[in-house]
Amino acid sequence: MSLLSIGTLAFDAIETPFGKTDKIVGGACTYIALAASYFVNESRVVSVVGGDFPKNRLSDLEKRGVNLEGLQIKENEKSFFWSGKYHTDMNTRDTLVTELNVLESFDPVIPESYKDDTTYLMLGNLAPVVQLQVLERLSNKPELVVLDTMNFWMDIAMADLKKVLKHVDVLTINDEEARQLSGEYSLVKAADVIREMGPTYLIIKKGEHGALLFHGTEVFCAPALPLAEVFDPTGAGDTFAGGFIGHIAKTKDHSFENMKRAIIFGSALASFTVEKFGTERLENLTIEEINSRVEKFVKLAHFNMDLAVI
Amino acid sequence: MSLLSIGTLAFDAIETPFGKTDKIVGGACTYIALAASYFVNESRVVSVVGGDFPKNRLSDLEKRGVNLEGLQIKENEKSFFWSGKYHTDMNTRDTLVTELNVLESFDPVIPESYKDDTTYLMLGNLAPVVQLQVLERLSNKPELVVLDTMNFWMDIAMADLKKVLKHVDVLTINDEEARQLSGEYSLVKAADVIREMGPTYLIIKKGEHGALLFHGTEVFCAPALPLAEVFDPTGAGDTFAGGFIGHIAKTKDHSFENMKRAIIFGSALASFTVEKFGTERLENLTIEEINSRVEKFVKLAHFNMDLAVI
Repeated sequence: MSLLSIGTLAFDAIETPFGKTDKIVGGACTYIALAASYFVNESRVVSVVGGDFPKNRLSDLEKRGVNLEGLQIKENEKSFFWSGKYHTDMNTRDTLVTELNVLESFDPVIPESYKDDTTYLMLGNLAPVVQLQVLERLSNKPELVVLDTMNFWMDIAMADLKKVLKHVDVLTINDEEARQLSGEYSLVKAADVIREMGPTYLIIKKGEHGALLFHGTEVFCAPALPLAEVFDPTGAGDTFAGGFIGHIAKTKDHSFENMKRAIIFGSALASFTVEKFGTERLENLTIEEINSRVEKFVKLAHFNMDLAVI
Repeated sequence: MSLLSIGTLAFDAIETPFGKTDKIVGGACTYIALAASYFVNESRVVSVVGGDFPKNRLSDLEKRGVNLEGLQIKENEKSFFWSGKYHTDMNTRDTLVTELNVLESFDPVIPESYKDDTTYLMLGNLAPVVQLQVLERLSNKPELVVLDTMNFWMDIAMADLKKVLKHVDVLTINDEEARQLSGEYSLVKAADVIREMGPTYLIIKKGEHGALLFHGTEVFCAPALPLAEVFDPTGAGDTFAGGFIGHIAKTKDHSFENMKRAIIFGSALASFTVEKFGTERLENLTIEEINSRVEKFVKLAHFNMDLAVI
């Protein structure tokens, strides 16, 4: 088993109704790798940072079993930077600043040792053309390819996105993105249209309303834990993706039933991420905390209709 | 066991992206009584209609075991009429016409035989002052009082609503209404504030995102069936309420576990109501259809984490 993730290691500056941060470490792949590290002892990353990215944060990742051989460090350039402000509902946000920096010319280099030995591939949120390059530069097709993307790429690179989707097994997007990608308002119809594009599994993330998994004629509706406070939603989707692929990679089981469990683990980890700014909460979880959070999801969704018929 | 429901028997004219109707029979209590009739052989109604309300629709209700002794028929007046137009998202609508007619002077009269023999009381959507009058005019406090209301009453009669809420066991409202009633954005915090107002159980209806049940420190997250088409959402909430109270009245079990089942039955029935205009789909369901729809909810929400720990 080997898990390869791509996505940004970057800086974020975040403002929420609860407060604001200076530049802090974020980026899709940071969250993915951290989340996955609770499931697998080793995973790999292909990404790029500038010389400004804190070396101690890289060695923290390495201590958690993240192999950074595929990380390009461009000492004379700056890391990707995003700044955003969340509205009161925490579901919508304004982007204040986007500085591509090292991403502008990112040409993903896959270490030789990764090329014929990538079983699970997590294509975190990046330009679809880069996601496709990574796929093309692997010698063997991975057993499972999961792709996360966002409305931004649908706005400016829909054709590229549709190209890479042909090679994807599992797509994770939110409900608005599912509508945009498919042109259908009903999520059931959207799921049909999107699965014609390539992915046989579609996960629709609905934030505080949980998630839906579509496959064949089956649907799974995952609950979301009602939270008294969502402090900072940044990285929740990436954490979800990392927990999802981490569980799949650990169990080597792509069945629908096991994907449900992977969704619950991803949701549980994401419910921690939103409790504090950035990666703070995700960095120091105990196994007991995670299992007890999973138990909350089980209780939350459980009902028994065995004896209840009309 | 005796179940008493109040609410309107009325006319609706509905426009959705799929089409529009002339005046058709609707009203909260129509949906409640129809939904409950799948669970109990007999139920009672306190309401008012004008001479224009079709007598054959009343005898249809009677054939389904609905006792109309508490229905006032004001032959020289007109029934309540509401007309509305749904937006593309089907979650929001504009009210085009509201004619109170018989509701303007509605003074609920409780038949003597109901007064000391009402075990379950469903206070469907009506002016809070009328809901309170019904409660006050019963000789015995029912075992369970369920109240449904809407933002309209929060806008114009919040003080009355808070008065009646003191006597209510279960409140059903949607998420926006929960926020308006409590002044809290987080539904967890909203649930705490609202339960200080009286109801020990709170059901937050989230339409296509399911429902939440709060009681003590427990929470249940009920799934919603993803539907390819929501044809007409009118009456879905009332159908939900009728199915909910119907199952409780049938089983005489107010436990949290059984309320979960009542929510699943209410959701299953509501998922039929939205398939056609008005009450059409709800009128002619078979037991097999309902049980098979419930089975879909079971499959939709089922996952098994027994062997899945990190």
